[in-house]
Amino acid sequence: MRTRIAIDAMGGDFAPFSIVAGAVLAQKAYGDSVELSLVGDKTQIEAELKNLNATDLPIKIVHSTQIIAMGDEPAESVRKKPDSSITVALGLQKSGQSQAFISAGNTGACMAASLIILGRLPAVNRPAIGAFFPTERGAALVLDVGANSDCKAINLYQFGLMGAIYFTQMFSNQNPRVGLLSIGEEKSKGNELTIASHKLLSAADLNFAGNIEGRDILKGKADVVICDGFVGNIILKFAESIDSFLGEIVRRQVRVNLLAKIGALLLQPAFKDLKKNLDSAEYGGAPLLGINGVSIICHGGSSPKAIKNAVRMAQNMVERDINRLIEERLAANGSYTPSEVKQK
Amino acid sequence: MRTRIAIDAMGGDFAPFSIVAGAVLAQKAYGDSVELSLVGDKTQIEAELKNLNATDLPIKIVHSTQIIAMGDEPAESVRKKPDSSITVALGLQKSGQSQAFISAGNTGACMAASLIILGRLPAVNRPAIGAFFPTERGAALVLDVGANSDCKAINLYQFGLMGAIYFTQMFSNQNPRVGLLSIGEEKSKGNELTIASHKLLSAADLNFAGNIEGRDILKGKADVVICDGFVGNIILKFAESIDSFLGEIVRRQVRVNLLAKIGALLLQPAFKDLKKNLDSAEYGGAPLLGINGVSIICHGGSSPKAIKNAVRMAQNMVERDINRLIEERLAANGSYTPSEVKQK
Repeated sequence: MRTRIAIDAMGGDFAPFSIVAGAVLAQKAYGDSVELSLVGDKTQIEAELKNLNATDLPIKIVHSTQIIAMGDEPAESVRKKPDSSITVALGLQKSGQSQAFISAGNTGACMAASLIILGRLPAVNRPAIGAFFPTERGAALVLDVGANSDCKAINLYQFGLMGAIYFTQMFSNQNPRVGLLSIGEEKSKGNELTIASHKLLSAADLNFAGNIEGRDILKGKADVVICDGFVGNIILKFAESIDSFLGEIVRRQVRVNLLAKIGALLLQPAFKDLKKNLDSAEYGGAPLLGINGVSIICHGGSSPKAIKNAVRMAQNMVERDINRLIEERLAANGSYTPSEVKQK
Repeated sequence: MRTRIAIDAMGGDFAPFSIVAGAVLAQKAYGDSVELSLVGDKTQIEAELKNLNATDLPIKIVHSTQIIAMGDEPAESVRKKPDSSITVALGLQKSGQSQAFISAGNTGACMAASLIILGRLPAVNRPAIGAFFPTERGAALVLDVGANSDCKAINLYQFGLMGAIYFTQMFSNQNPRVGLLSIGEEKSKGNELTIASHKLLSAADLNFAGNIEGRDILKGKADVVICDGFVGNIILKFAESIDSFLGEIVRRQVRVNLLAKIGALLLQPAFKDLKKNLDSAEYGGAPLLGINGVSIICHGGSSPKAIKNAVRMAQNMVERDINRLIEERLAANGSYTPSEVKQK
């Protein structure tokens, strides 16, 4: 059975080129296992497919006339642009014509539109965006990286459960270590939010590693790192800026030192490897977990390869039925009614 | 007039060696402008001075019998160990025998002891720890990096004023750009705390650059970066772990690739420069701003050079009378009475 995936062709810094090229790579790589629809301006998408000599591939085009720009106000733009590529692509999923959504466009708008059009899973109070960080041991899933700037303990608790399920399915790791990002390892250390969350996470059916610190993320001390969306977003963007900072430091040396220049040339493969390790797009994109559907948000600067990887990610999420697992797990760990949630 | 500085000789991963060696470096470098006292076990300190052929230097020794260990509970250890090197060294400042305190020991205990023994400045609600980050343009002061895990807007506002004064004095920069660490640049973006803080900082007599994002710290978009101690501590520790992560990535490449190995050798100076840039100890230590005195907390792994730099920092803070400037500036920007503070 093919996984039907709707891709927003108009979102991202290099759209529609990068997106269409990514869909072509994915179609060639995954063939009959996927059914891809590119949503956006038909003329532009057709032109890109023609440039790529890919008009004979079985990629569908769904025409839409509006575009939500990177700077548009998320909720407002979703309301005001009902024929945008984002809303149309999500509408396909709502009506059952597709099973997953991918966009490299306005993150806030993707999130708002996913919530408005698909809604959340009944057991989940707040969906969260998960992002992969490279570590000395492999990769860690950090969530939330921006969906919720103010959280309650119940939210972090649910992020822990959702993150563990997702990590297990994507990496075939049956017992991922879940760490709560805090300051200080003891359970009494942290802020009011993490201290309260620690209690809930300790009682959950999880491989809970307790508090971890900022230095533990890249060391790979946890497979799933839990934090509110404010902290997660700051760390994510800080990490993304390391590459440029390192480049600047190396350039300064190379400018004054010929041997360093030769060294830099010889080390090119290592630098490339480093960049790849620091580039979260390698993992395809960031899933919005807790949504009643599959929604993957890619970096605005996504390469065709990143889009292709996002297709693979979407396919995995659909095939492994992540959402059913989340519903079951949250129910098994005790479902919180709204009145209970308020007390947390 | 000599600046009298009391140094905790027993705190830090390499104490007393690293600390005594740092004091010796500082005494040789700054000569008659400083009067240094090493506080701790007299026998051990004398032995280190002897090993360093430095017994003839005019460095005082103040004997104390107890040590607050790295793992000790901060407030409790200050109470239970009245003859610890930290409490005795701060006592010298309280009684007027010294003007500044330096320690590479238990950060929490240094902070608690500074608050208990020296108290805070009347105009300051909460002292903050400031740490220097390297940037593409130079250095940025980030505060708070761990003194306050839960903050109110009035705290972040005062951090902004204190940070600007400190940066101005230390870098002779008359108009440092103060950025509020948040998610999204618009003033409406962020969490409840930053949105409320943005209003107060906008109204202050400051070169306020508005919200900055995680990616802007290393780019050097602000000279002073304001955040609560929870976020600041996580970012600081994350940044400190980059060095080890990069080392691991490069080692992996070098293991399999001879050319990369040669490249790594040729690039040694660049890597050294990078490590130095990422090493906050280069700036000497982290000042505790808002304390009624001068208290500098150094990294546990401080080298002798870091201790020497901390001595220079302490000297600057005393000579430039940072605390009087903070009191004046906070009064000029409107002093908040406790009832007003509660409303923020």
